[in-house]
Amino acid sequence: MKKVGIVMGSTSDLPVVEKAIAVLQEYGVPLEVRVLSAHRCPEEAAAFARSARGSGFSVLIAAAGMAAHLAGALAANCTLPVIGIPCKGAVLEGMDALLSTVMMPPGVPVATVGVDGGKNAALLAVEMLSLSDEALAAKLEAARSENRAAVLRSDETLRARYH
Amino acid sequence: MKKVGIVMGSTSDLPVVEKAIAVLQEYGVPLEVRVLSAHRCPEEAAAFARSARGSGFSVLIAAAGMAAHLAGALAANCTLPVIGIPCKGAVLEGMDALLSTVMMPPGVPVATVGVDGGKNAALLAVEMLSLSDEALAAKLEAARSENRAAVLRSDETLRARYH
Amino acid sequence: MKKVGIVMGSTSDLPVVEKAIAVLQEYGVPLEVRVLSAHRCPEEAAAFARSARGSGFSVLIAAAGMAAHLAGALAANCTLPVIGIPCKGAVLEGMDALLSTVMMPPGVPVATVGVDGGKNAALLAVEMLSLSDEALAAKLEAARSENRAAVLRSDETLRARYH
Amino acid sequence: MKKVGIVMGSTSDLPVVEKAIAVLQEYGVPLEVRVLSAHRCPEEAAAFARSARGSGFSVLIAAAGMAAHLAGALAANCTLPVIGIPCKGAVLEGMDALLSTVMMPPGVPVATVGVDGGKNAALLAVEMLSLSDEALAAKLEAARSENRAAVLRSDETLRARYH
Amino acid sequence: MKKVGIVMGSTSDLPVVEKAIAVLQEYGVPLEVRVLSAHRCPEEAAAFARSARGSGFSVLIAAAGMAAHLAGALAANCTLPVIGIPCKGAVLEGMDALLSTVMMPPGVPVATVGVDGGKNAALLAVEMLSLSDEALAAKLEAARSENRAAVLRSDETLRARYH
Amino acid sequence: MKKVGIVMGSTSDLPVVEKAIAVLQEYGVPLEVRVLSAHRCPEEAAAFARSARGSGFSVLIAAAGMAAHLAGALAANCTLPVIGIPCKGAVLEGMDALLSTVMMPPGVPVATVGVDGGKNAALLAVEMLSLSDEALAAKLEAARSENRAAVLRSDETLRARYH
Amino acid sequence: MKKVGIVMGSTSDLPVVEKAIAVLQEYGVPLEVRVLSAHRCPEEAAAFARSARGSGFSVLIAAAGMAAHLAGALAANCTLPVIGIPCKGAVLEGMDALLSTVMMPPGVPVATVGVDGGKNAALLAVEMLSLSDEALAAKLEAARSENRAAVLRSDETLRARYH
Amino acid sequence: MKKVGIVMGSTSDLPVVEKAIAVLQEYGVPLEVRVLSAHRCPEEAAAFARSARGSGFSVLIAAAGMAAHLAGALAANCTLPVIGIPCKGAVLEGMDALLSTVMMPPGVPVATVGVDGGKNAALLAVEMLSLSDEALAAKLEAARSENRAAVLRSDETLRARYH
Repeated sequence: MKKVGIVMGSTSDLPVVEKAIAVLQEYGVPLEVRVLSAHRCPEEAAAFARSARGSGFSVLIAAAGMAAHLAGALAANCTLPVIGIPCKGAVLEGMDALLSTVMMPPGVPVATVGVDGGKNAALLAVEMLSLSDEALAAKLEAARSENRAAVLRSDETLRARYH
Repeated sequence: MKKVGIVMGSTSDLPVVEKAIAVLQEYGVPLEVRVLSAHRCPEEAAAFARSARGSGFSVLIAAAGMAAHLAGALAANCTLPVIGIPCKGAVLEGMDALLSTVMMPPGVPVATVGVDGGKNAALLAVEMLSLSDEALAAKLEAARSENRAAVLRSDETLRARYH
Repeated sequence: MKKVGIVMGSTSDLPVVEKAIAVLQEYGVPLEVRVLSAHRCPEEAAAFARSARGSGFSVLIAAAGMAAHLAGALAANCTLPVIGIPCKGAVLEGMDALLSTVMMPPGVPVATVGVDGGKNAALLAVEMLSLSDEALAAKLEAARSENRAAVLRSDETLRARYH
Repeated sequence: MKKVGIVMGSTSDLPVVEKAIAVLQEYGVPLEVRVLSAHRCPEEAAAFARSARGSGFSVLIAAAGMAAHLAGALAANCTLPVIGIPCKGAVLEGMDALLSTVMMPPGVPVATVGVDGGKNAALLAVEMLSLSDEALAAKLEAARSENRAAVLRSDETLRARYH
Repeated sequence: MKKVGIVMGSTSDLPVVEKAIAVLQEYGVPLEVRVLSAHRCPEEAAAFARSARGSGFSVLIAAAGMAAHLAGALAANCTLPVIGIPCKGAVLEGMDALLSTVMMPPGVPVATVGVDGGKNAALLAVEMLSLSDEALAAKLEAARSENRAAVLRSDETLRARYH
Repeated sequence: MKKVGIVMGSTSDLPVVEKAIAVLQEYGVPLEVRVLSAHRCPEEAAAFARSARGSGFSVLIAAAGMAAHLAGALAANCTLPVIGIPCKGAVLEGMDALLSTVMMPPGVPVATVGVDGGKNAALLAVEMLSLSDEALAAKLEAARSENRAAVLRSDETLRARYH
Repeated sequence: MKKVGIVMGSTSDLPVVEKAIAVLQEYGVPLEVRVLSAHRCPEEAAAFARSARGSGFSVLIAAAGMAAHLAGALAANCTLPVIGIPCKGAVLEGMDALLSTVMMPPGVPVATVGVDGGKNAALLAVEMLSLSDEALAAKLEAARSENRAAVLRSDETLRARYH
Repeated sequence: MKKVGIVMGSTSDLPVVEKAIAVLQEYGVPLEVRVLSAHRCPEEAAAFARSARGSGFSVLIAAAGMAAHLAGALAANCTLPVIGIPCKGAVLEGMDALLSTVMMPPGVPVATVGVDGGKNAALLAVEMLSLSDEALAAKLEAARSENRAAVLRSDETLRARYH
């Protein structure tokens, strides 16, 4: 299986990224974790993206905060699907990162998930991979079933408590 | 090739959706266009999503405005990648649709593009399909090259005009 | 008396929901508490709503955060009044849940209360029930009087303190 | 049947209110239309609300823009359900009216619908009345079915067009 | 000298109000502190405002949070200048109270100060009183001078520290 | 009677200012209209404010858009009450001017009215002047009565129309 | 004199850019106009920035809308001062471009001007150049004087009109 | 070398300002630190700005919160480049200071950096000075290289950890 590239703009984004890593590991998806900043090492970030398809990457996940350009910078340099995770910073409640990530111009899409949405970014990558991998599709369905079952167990508990 | 499902919550979203259709047709991606509202025909929308993988769909694209639940409702009922297009409504500049589409809870991702981003939604779908279709990958690269060339032509024109 | 259904999208919403439960118990309104997620168990949530009127429910209260679709999903599946409580999440100060809950399309209303407004959601339900229950109407009036008296006692205290 | 009171803060809100009137007339719900401003005739507005339950009103609907206090002012003076319609004004995209209407303090709820949501306000009122009126409940269900059918007809049309 | 009325919607606003009280006491302006809620005791709040001019009040200051109607409710019932202090609540960073206080319709003004601006509300009241009270005007000028001097002392300190 | 100074930052604010002028003329309040920019002629603006009390001004009204510093700049240079009118500009719906006007630091208040609130700014000035002018107070009360009567006439009309 | 580089992300930003060009021409500052997109020709944009100091550029001005990465992308690739102009797009009132431009991470600054602020961007560039060019400094002072005089002429006109 | 003036509106902004001081000291840029409030000592602030070019200042940096007028007030009184740092206050997440700083009217620019962006403000000043100081230009390039190297070291560490 091709690997998913997870790129963070700064190690301060690691807690969000770790949620994505955990999901990919759970699904057995090979991954490579990178720290590449669109602003502090733009050439390396661009080079990474340009060579990504040829280097055996499938999907790229980019986590960044503030004027979060990382996902857009990767997307500008490759035609693999790029998933952007806007990270909450010290001010503005993540709205800056959200708009910087999602409002891409026509021609260069970024698949944006919610603020600090590390888990969903990884699941979205797995869903993309599942298009040509029935085993992953089955695992996703199983996880959904378990998720559903967990809610229904909570439902049973609380329904009984307030009866 | 599996088909892309394009769902709009209301025919008022058609102008945005048509941008997506045009892109998919340009790439030769088979598609099916649907009008299915998360609020006005929730069972049909859910049924569509639940059977989508089995019915030969690959990616789903959902366009909706206001409290835009359509993408989330499809995502809740299938494990295919779901791309959400928040549509601008009569008030609030599309912020309502953007937040309703992108801020999904952990476990059920929606790949959100910018407000009214019909073209990017389709390109994102093509990028996902290109993971297992080298011809599409090549077309995407070619389109990027043409895009790049168009900018450089504008660059040449304006650079000369203000010389 | 018919019962009020209180549904939360996740047990993390329980603190907000408990404020609603307390009010309903105080008014002697029968209630049923459920955990049903619009995204993690959409079929159960829809089934609950579809059968709600027939199962003896009067009003439904739905509490959810982020892209809060729960109230809308219930409203899409029944014609009972659905009250939505937008819950504050980790980012964006509850604005995401507020817009996702209140900006419903024409045809499928949600009666939205303020962010984390568990108490008001329950009072609103009681007000609806009071339309055909004079005892509840009298209790509501009495509570208002007590509320008013409590303010006036504070008024007296502070007025004296700064005299 | 008890009548629904529809109050607007200014005749400039009439276009929004007319959408509510049309729905109530369609459902055969008796109504009374009032112009009562929380700021320009506060005593009359308060008096109206205080006597509303006794005067044969069931639900009150209040439409107002800007610092929209009307719904809250009515709710402060009666224990009938009060539905608030925030109206878009000349600036701020309706956000001022939305927050002024929905963020009510504990003890005095307002059932808020979306910005300019005249139709949904009326439907919400009908849903409340339907709790003790099976004919109204049946009409609501019929309207939902027709709504659903209209979407499905659009679906069929567009599905065919892009086949 | 006529007295300033300081009204809070809830005792939870007392910390903000105390800043206003301290300023008025410092200026020797007589004051009366009240707890009167636009929503929980609307008649008393309206009655207070209606009789305020006749009862020897000059300026009214109103502090409230959320859908902050208090200042507007007082302003609707008297033609004294009403100063509104929007108070920050548990969510939305005070934006709800700010818009609910400042966006008054034509005809009924509220003089709004910044979120939690208790000190400025009182100073504004003193400025109004100073229009016909030269002693107050002189005190205001003196306070400005002292304020200015305090900044210049800080300026001297820091200028030296980083020399 | 002392005169009210109405200052606009740019002649583009004249439509908003004219609403204020009309009100003051209606109340027979002497006024002086100025164009003084906090940014383009800061010395003249400051000099105007510094000498305002001595030159026979009572209240100052300042209308400005964007990063609207004018009201704050006047307030920084005098201890007369300064009323700020935030004007809507080409972008951001007036939110920039509102926050720039209202969020003044402790010690230097600005009495802010709603976006483009020229009429309310003037009424607020008249209310301040009415503290020591019983004729103005009576006129204000009369205007409120007429305002109230106008609403009640609309009320009668619409009440009849939908009977 | 070194030249100022004016870069736009798309020719749709030309109306904003033309305001900057006009100012630079008025000041006799040599300039070069480019169309270089951070997303559609990222390598050319980066190469331009990397070589800018060596190619005789002084200040760079970048105009872009939506998730406006252009200024940040130039800033990431050179240590010349980069001025960012956030351009208003079809939705969100320019807030997306503003936050994407101004919220740069520590280490890579962008000097941001207001939304659509083409004129101010150019003036800021001239101010920077004036640090080592006394003639430009004198021209800037003269322009300020003329600006000031224009306001004072308006002041005289309006002051007379409303006398 | 000419000195950079760093002005804060209040000593509460010192933590943000200290980040700027540290950077300038690191680059060996002479500086002068001032506390000058646009609202509490407007004459001193204006006088400082008016004489700044003549007193040997190059760039001015202004840090202020809330209705942050300081940068604009300095810019209004001199034609040196003025860099504005919007500081986060107790409410509104810094949005008030950002809009008050960046949305300057045509003719009087402020080079705005991100909320609390003390470090970037100083770097921007150094970039401006580097236009005529090759040693500073070289230091900036070196710092960027070190910055880049630091990211690449993190990259190596994390890449290895998740291998």
